[in-house]
Amino acid sequence: MDNDDLRRGKPTNHIVYGESVAVLAGDALLAFAFEHIAVATPRNVHPSRIVRAIGELAKVIGGEGLVAGQVVDISSEGNSEVGLKELEFIHIHKTAKLLEGSVVLGAILGGGSDDEVERLRRYARDIGLLFQVVDDILDVTKSSQELGKTAGKDLVADKVTYPKLMGIEKSREFAEKLNEEAKEQLVGFDPVKAAPLIALANYIAYRQN
Amino acid sequence: MDNDDLRRGKPTNHIVYGESVAVLAGDALLAFAFEHIAVATPRNVHPSRIVRAIGELAKVIGGEGLVAGQVVDISSEGNSEVGLKELEFIHIHKTAKLLEGSVVLGAILGGGSDDEVERLRRYARDIGLLFQVVDDILDVTKSSQELGKTAGKDLVADKVTYPKLMGIEKSREFAEKLNEEAKEQLVGFDPVKAAPLIALANYIAYRQN
Repeated sequence: MDNDDLRRGKPTNHIVYGESVAVLAGDALLAFAFEHIAVATPRNVHPSRIVRAIGELAKVIGGEGLVAGQVVDISSEGNSEVGLKELEFIHIHKTAKLLEGSVVLGAILGGGSDDEVERLRRYARDIGLLFQVVDDILDVTKSSQELGKTAGKDLVADKVTYPKLMGIEKSREFAEKLNEEAKEQLVGFDPVKAAPLIALANYIAYRQN
Repeated sequence: MDNDDLRRGKPTNHIVYGESVAVLAGDALLAFAFEHIAVATPRNVHPSRIVRAIGELAKVIGGEGLVAGQVVDISSEGNSEVGLKELEFIHIHKTAKLLEGSVVLGAILGGGSDDEVERLRRYARDIGLLFQVVDDILDVTKSSQELGKTAGKDLVADKVTYPKLMGIEKSREFAEKLNEEAKEQLVGFDPVKAAPLIALANYIAYRQN
């Protein structure tokens, strides 16, 4: 339970039910994600697409996805040698891969071509990394009241961030580049269908809290 | 790390790498189980069977499977009110469901009919429960040397067991009944293909350590 949870009076699972049950709840939810895709996908979706979607979901979670990011994050704690390469690895695996899964699964189940799936994968990775860069910038430029959570947490925790490694201005330029690159991937898609994805990229780029 | 691990000099994952990494390794392996079925099942298996197999695997692991058994096991610790009903729930969910998954997945991927799948499910549940009943009996009737692990552990830990709840003789009768019931499910299958399953049931029933 971190300070934000305490302040909002929201104790987390492991505090209320104990660590064992919290870990088991995670295992159950992880299994349920696969169960849900397997049993609840509409019958007009060809099963070969469902199998491909399940393979994608497993990859973004497992030893080459979320878990890899979390392990590197844990082993980087308190290590002053952590640079841009490690920071990007952590963010791509802990955050961008989950966005990648969300977007790519939709593309696969909806019948996207290989090229469409890969362009949407790139879009999702970009906005995932963008989310983290913007998060780092807001942490050092906004007050706790503006953020709705404790500002300056990264500084207090001595965490490696984009502003710390490249400065605020370069971080803002990097965020802008990621946003542009994300939206470039959507060129050629039906503009009406692409509109919510463009809006999502802009929302992540320009959010203030 | 329990005493048996210590005695064999095999420290477990969470001792060597820490609890966080051990939990993450579990998450990665769980995701990898689904990934493996999705990407490595031979192409001559129809994808609809793969989807059904994945749904089965998720169910035997999740909130109605292994996780449910582990949660009830944890909440039963030190509770003297635990009876046969709870004990059977724990063993069916923690042990028998995993055997059920192993057997039923093969039946589904191999193209078994619904009736064949359900008979093999019953077979697997029976030998799963059998495994635990026999384990409980061996714990009180064999020496540590015969078992290759510490005997009498359940008594020391004040764990509820079949011999404690129904006595050794009734436990042996129950084991025999489960073994017979398991093998009855195999009647009608190709005897050559059923032979290893019959041998497995007997191995579990008559093992001495």
